[in-house]
Amino acid sequence: MSDITFTNQLTTRLVNHAASDEGVVAAARVSTIGIKSTEYLSTDAEESSGLINFLMKNRHGTPFEHNMFTFFVQAPIAVFREWHRHRIGWSYNEESGRYKQLEPMFYVPSRERPLKQVGKPGHYEFVPLGDEMAYERMVATLQISCKDSYHRYEILLNEGIAKEVARGVLPVYIYSSMYATCNARSLMSFLSLRTKDDRSTFKSFPMWEIEQVALQAESHFADLMPITYKAFIDNGRVAP
Amino acid sequence: MSDITFTNQLTTRLVNHAASDEGVVAAARVSTIGIKSTEYLSTDAEESSGLINFLMKNRHGTPFEHNMFTFFVQAPIAVFREWHRHRIGWSYNEESGRYKQLEPMFYVPSRERPLKQVGKPGHYEFVPLGDEMAYERMVATLQISCKDSYHRYEILLNEGIAKEVARGVLPVYIYSSMYATCNARSLMSFLSLRTKDDRSTFKSFPMWEIEQVALQAESHFADLMPITYKAFIDNGRVAP
Amino acid sequence: MSDITFTNQLTTRLVNHAASDEGVVAAARVSTIGIKSTEYLSTDAEESSGLINFLMKNRHGTPFEHNMFTFFVQAPIAVFREWHRHRIGWSYNEESGRYKQLEPMFYVPSRERPLKQVGKPGHYEFVPLGDEMAYERMVATLQISCKDSYHRYEILLNEGIAKEVARGVLPVYIYSSMYATCNARSLMSFLSLRTKDDRSTFKSFPMWEIEQVALQAESHFADLMPITYKAFIDNGRVAP
Amino acid sequence: MSDITFTNQLTTRLVNHAASDEGVVAAARVSTIGIKSTEYLSTDAEESSGLINFLMKNRHGTPFEHNMFTFFVQAPIAVFREWHRHRIGWSYNEESGRYKQLEPMFYVPSRERPLKQVGKPGHYEFVPLGDEMAYERMVATLQISCKDSYHRYEILLNEGIAKEVARGVLPVYIYSSMYATCNARSLMSFLSLRTKDDRSTFKSFPMWEIEQVALQAESHFADLMPITYKAFIDNGRVAP
Repeated sequence: MSDITFTNQLTTRLVNHAASDEGVVAAARVSTIGIKSTEYLSTDAEESSGLINFLMKNRHGTPFEHNMFTFFVQAPIAVFREWHRHRIGWSYNEESGRYKQLEPMFYVPSRERPLKQVGKPGHYEFVPLGDEMAYERMVATLQISCKDSYHRYEILLNEGIAKEVARGVLPVYIYSSMYATCNARSLMSFLSLRTKDDRSTFKSFPMWEIEQVALQAESHFADLMPITYKAFIDNGRVAP
Repeated sequence: MSDITFTNQLTTRLVNHAASDEGVVAAARVSTIGIKSTEYLSTDAEESSGLINFLMKNRHGTPFEHNMFTFFVQAPIAVFREWHRHRIGWSYNEESGRYKQLEPMFYVPSRERPLKQVGKPGHYEFVPLGDEMAYERMVATLQISCKDSYHRYEILLNEGIAKEVARGVLPVYIYSSMYATCNARSLMSFLSLRTKDDRSTFKSFPMWEIEQVALQAESHFADLMPITYKAFIDNGRVAP
Repeated sequence: MSDITFTNQLTTRLVNHAASDEGVVAAARVSTIGIKSTEYLSTDAEESSGLINFLMKNRHGTPFEHNMFTFFVQAPIAVFREWHRHRIGWSYNEESGRYKQLEPMFYVPSRERPLKQVGKPGHYEFVPLGDEMAYERMVATLQISCKDSYHRYEILLNEGIAKEVARGVLPVYIYSSMYATCNARSLMSFLSLRTKDDRSTFKSFPMWEIEQVALQAESHFADLMPITYKAFIDNGRVAP
Repeated sequence: MSDITFTNQLTTRLVNHAASDEGVVAAARVSTIGIKSTEYLSTDAEESSGLINFLMKNRHGTPFEHNMFTFFVQAPIAVFREWHRHRIGWSYNEESGRYKQLEPMFYVPSRERPLKQVGKPGHYEFVPLGDEMAYERMVATLQISCKDSYHRYEILLNEGIAKEVARGVLPVYIYSSMYATCNARSLMSFLSLRTKDDRSTFKSFPMWEIEQVALQAESHFADLMPITYKAFIDNGRVAP
């Protein structure tokens, strides 16, 4: 039987990109100055920060689409299940349980992850368990469950059962990996829904795990398009 | 502890629709006759079957988009994972493991499902296990694994762990349900990839379970848009 | 030479639909009650108006996608140019200048259309010309220009020039017609951008002509999905 | 009155990109080897040309989406009208007739453009006029018509009529400019429909003008992703 790995790592790496504030400015200015807008592709966007803020505030979204971010994400299937519901402006290629034996790596929440859900659907809040023993019991239960499931997966594979059938017993805390490509507009839509921020005009209640990978994507966005990012923050994190 | 249900039911029910061959004809004819095309909304499409075949053969896809099918689907998560990768022309709302306790119902393949995978990725073929005992052993392993996982899920819930965390141990053969809405064009794209048919111009190798739900959707499509469906078949099941 | 028609008619007819508030409620409730949600397909949505308002306010958009509106629109090309920029959740089939001779029908703004543009890009306001003579002069200039253009179009056609080349001289106030299909979510996105309303959280400055056809679509939406429509209005006309 | 420019220039410039065959290979391989696929981001794709051909042939489309091309296009509105009908995987920002006075530049077909349309809708063929005098007459008619239209546009503007109303008289051969961003998959879909090629599995009958700008986009695609491009050609120019 394979050794099982448990981890709380949730990672979003930027593996390819073509993104700049200058691209936003040029695309926006074509409406009023036509071909002269191409000069702005190589002009510091800082001097057009007012324009970018105007676009964001008034939800002129299309100028934010002429760019690209490709992320390589490692997270449990439970996270990918939510991420893949973002259909527009997103492209995905993921590890396949039909074509490969999935690795024996499972997610276990860290102590900082609030584990108790209180309130009603749509208004859930998450609070700490408040009991170190309870956390330990949870970890033990998660681990034994995932381990048993993976053990049965291997038994089925050894019996000659197809990978796509045997994986039926694998839990949604097993890790997967994917390439996810978006543009700044579709990324902002994702961030507005998958992060929780007091500055948000529209409050979201994301699952803690997807928020962690979303925040990593957000930091890459902030690095590559700082003026656009500031406008996003200043205007209540509303995707334009 | 809850009683566990095992089943091989995979169901696609049509719960709402607005779909007809006449809509295809009217939309296609607007290009050549403008407003007069509206007469075709209430003219038997049979007399325009040649036009529909022409559209399909030459991949004029847009006239097939002015219609709607809403399906209610019950299938294991493993099936929904694939279905949700269809982004364009598809809308989804699914049961949530964050907002409700998932039901103790799990999928177990029937005897008719080929269980053995042979060949290389991209060329897999599936053949019968060829051994009744092996099938029984598989069923037993699947059942004990799913049962143990659900048992641990309940333990975690009883400990006060949030539903969205506790469900981390649940396997992808647990059942879920969703509304899935599409149009004839996006449905044909789905069918061309998720069914296997010797008449197909482009061969597909779908997972057996998604093919079963796809074939049920296909039968509704055939009922509501028989001329379009015939053209789809006659032209190699290539989505226009 | 053909007789030329001038008109200020801008029309959006509903020619097919499958839309109800009940569909929104059922799709939303699947997340918390699974298959029991199907009962809501045939339960008066009035008792779930609070839920619909909650979805709208918190921008849970997907439950609003399981429905369909097909409009037949007659308007000048200038309007279609803007409409076709709505890509997601919209399907189009339009009269073709390649395949048919376009009709000699042109748009001339009515007296109620504010004709003077003041202010800067992004902040334009439109005010009346304030001079009946100026309106008459505008009409005369538009008419003679469109008439001359159509005359040259016919000359080119008579010379044997292909329709798709001859139409190069036709102005964007010539009429076209199309089928446009959407769902309530994509329709609300369209309405939020193509109508101007003091109740809007995000102000829009649509072209007057597209606002007229948008308002007709809006009235059909209000008729078929009154609870959803009320929630849209009550929450600042923000598309969820 | 402004001087009028007539030209037959149709241009597609590549102004930004992040596109490589290596990205296709890495995205495809994640399904079978997970994280090890990232090594292929920096491995010569030449050794995986068989894989790329396999993906193309079997219409596995998603690995071709993790890249970006931004084009700056200058062409008459008649061309943009067709281009904008490509909704999925395309982003646009165009010069605005509401926000700026459009330039007095118009398209006139060159002698090489076949000008005569023969056959029935759906089967049109284009042949030369076969008469130098007829070409000259066409040019004269196009020019006088566009010139008169622009003259009336200026008259309306001088009268204080809003730009968005005055432009109603401008013909669809007036030039516009736009940024258009796509990925290799959406670009291949565009190319398969907007170019005519004897090697195509599915024949297309594009308008000559859009084919010229499409072919320029195609050459950039061929430069940046030569292995993908070869697979596209070798497999009948069918978008995967």
